[in-house]
Amino acid sequence: MNDVITMDHGSGGKKSASLVQEIFLPAFANDALNALGDGAVLEGGANLVMSTDSFVIAPRFFPGGDIGKLAVCGTVNDVCMAGGAPKYLSLGMILEEGLPLDELRSVAASIAKAANEANVQIVTGDTKVVERGKGDGLYINTAGIGFLRHPGLSRERMREGDAVIVSGFVGDHGAAVMLARAELGIKSSLCSDCAPLTAMCASLAACGEAVRVLRDPTRGGVATALNEFVEDTPLCIELTEDAIPIRAETQAGCDLLGLDPLYCANEGKLVAVVDKEKAEEALAAIRRAPYGENAAVIGTVSARSPGHVLLLTRAQGTRMLSKLTGAELPRIC
Amino acid sequence: MNDVITMDHGSGGKKSASLVQEIFLPAFANDALNALGDGAVLEGGANLVMSTDSFVIAPRFFPGGDIGKLAVCGTVNDVCMAGGAPKYLSLGMILEEGLPLDELRSVAASIAKAANEANVQIVTGDTKVVERGKGDGLYINTAGIGFLRHPGLSRERMREGDAVIVSGFVGDHGAAVMLARAELGIKSSLCSDCAPLTAMCASLAACGEAVRVLRDPTRGGVATALNEFVEDTPLCIELTEDAIPIRAETQAGCDLLGLDPLYCANEGKLVAVVDKEKAEEALAAIRRAPYGENAAVIGTVSARSPGHVLLLTRAQGTRMLSKLTGAELPRIC
Repeated sequence: MNDVITMDHGSGGKKSASLVQEIFLPAFANDALNALGDGAVLEGGANLVMSTDSFVIAPRFFPGGDIGKLAVCGTVNDVCMAGGAPKYLSLGMILEEGLPLDELRSVAASIAKAANEANVQIVTGDTKVVERGKGDGLYINTAGIGFLRHPGLSRERMREGDAVIVSGFVGDHGAAVMLARAELGIKSSLCSDCAPLTAMCASLAACGEAVRVLRDPTRGGVATALNEFVEDTPLCIELTEDAIPIRAETQAGCDLLGLDPLYCANEGKLVAVVDKEKAEEALAAIRRAPYGENAAVIGTVSARSPGHVLLLTRAQGTRMLSKLTGAELPRIC
Repeated sequence: MNDVITMDHGSGGKKSASLVQEIFLPAFANDALNALGDGAVLEGGANLVMSTDSFVIAPRFFPGGDIGKLAVCGTVNDVCMAGGAPKYLSLGMILEEGLPLDELRSVAASIAKAANEANVQIVTGDTKVVERGKGDGLYINTAGIGFLRHPGLSRERMREGDAVIVSGFVGDHGAAVMLARAELGIKSSLCSDCAPLTAMCASLAACGEAVRVLRDPTRGGVATALNEFVEDTPLCIELTEDAIPIRAETQAGCDLLGLDPLYCANEGKLVAVVDKEKAEEALAAIRRAPYGENAAVIGTVSARSPGHVLLLTRAQGTRMLSKLTGAELPRIC
């Protein structure tokens, strides 16, 4: 590790993980945090789930959403991935001097709309202002509380033969934001997939223990999320390239920008590992829910190459998909 | 209101309040948020309390603490002021490219130490990195959850004759930070009062309904916090200047910098309005607790000048203490 923070530390890949492992976990260790889920399941009267996320995205407005919608969906989805039904959000804003108030109004309206769809309330907040040049317009933190409705989700419960499901087209958010950022002047129908997964997870909860683990593949994309499931375990995930739903526009945008959709952030998708006996049932539960109509089984859990994610390519080859290493997509959420 | 964000919007005074009233409340209105407490009391299985705060302080290290200690105490105290016993914290970090990792380690250690003293666990977190020049080293957001132990705290319960108590010396945090920021090279023993009020509030909870309302006078100081108690009500708070505990070093530092300790931030103090019949009992409860040994009754609730805070000066005069209006102390927490 270098001795200063670099943009790589924010990519969601290996350097981000090193910060957590080498600095944060040793300092704060406790059972809830050590589980390293998207959210923490807490002891207490009501089986609480808590999660937090900060949003530093550039640009703040992008096709399919803005930083406000993202700030709601990101945290709501993290609570969902930990098995919680999201209920309350806190909202912390860091405003840069000079931010137009109309922009703040517009972001507040997006937050309200997304919160309404996700069925959560913004119950407490805080606003700070920093001098011009000490921020980048607007940073948002949200923390979310939910009540546990889908207990026991954990990668520890994965077994050989389990099915790997993705809830729809992969990589849309990352590709849309990077294309917007590149300012290439290209007309594209590419949109972020930013959406709350509250209803989809309520639907999946009916499958109970058959669902082993859930993750929303944000920074680092599907490839990084799946690596987190199997690393340091005797298990392997084998993906079938042909089975992975990728929009033609997303693939084209990624080709243009030199990106891989499997490493591009998603903000309205989940990956699920499910008991193979219940895979069709889980797939149907996801497809019935909003934003789930293009869900697909994309792979299986095996013991072929412990700790690794393999991609069985269209050309009948096998490619190892490692965790994101550099800052392929900094400030993507 | 101007049409862009100015530093005044972050002062904790009138301009900050205008953001809340004109932008955030209309967008997110719900009962918990509308109460505008330091934290929100939530419905749910276990009578939850939730609060959040972002910390953008400059400098990040100051006599008596650092941004890490502050990030724990600030949110812990907000949960306490809403009547909660704090239990869990989330931690969101926004790191600027180039931040030394040793500094991050040091801040993480401060967070761990303060969390330990406050008896809270850091259960979930998130880290983002922004490019050099798009931040100021390190911004921290914490959100806190607690369980309600002191129900019903509300300024609505204030009555004529109630006593106003402050839990110790006023203005130390703001004065210490501003003096550190001024880099005057002055040797001073002045320290921030940054501390968790968990134990003090547990002690006060025994006074039950006699405690009408609590507030930690952070940005905007004691004068602004008390104004928030009486504004738009038929009540007035009358303070006795001689009764307000102010350290000689703090007064001297404020005199040097042109500040008023009554408007300087505190990070380990509370103001309480208490039934006059129980004022001595509440004072004793505060004094028994850590950080409470210099608590004092500093005023009373009256109907003399509805909606206002009056200071009865040493010279037998009366001065109106309005809410902080400008950015007297930006980025103080």
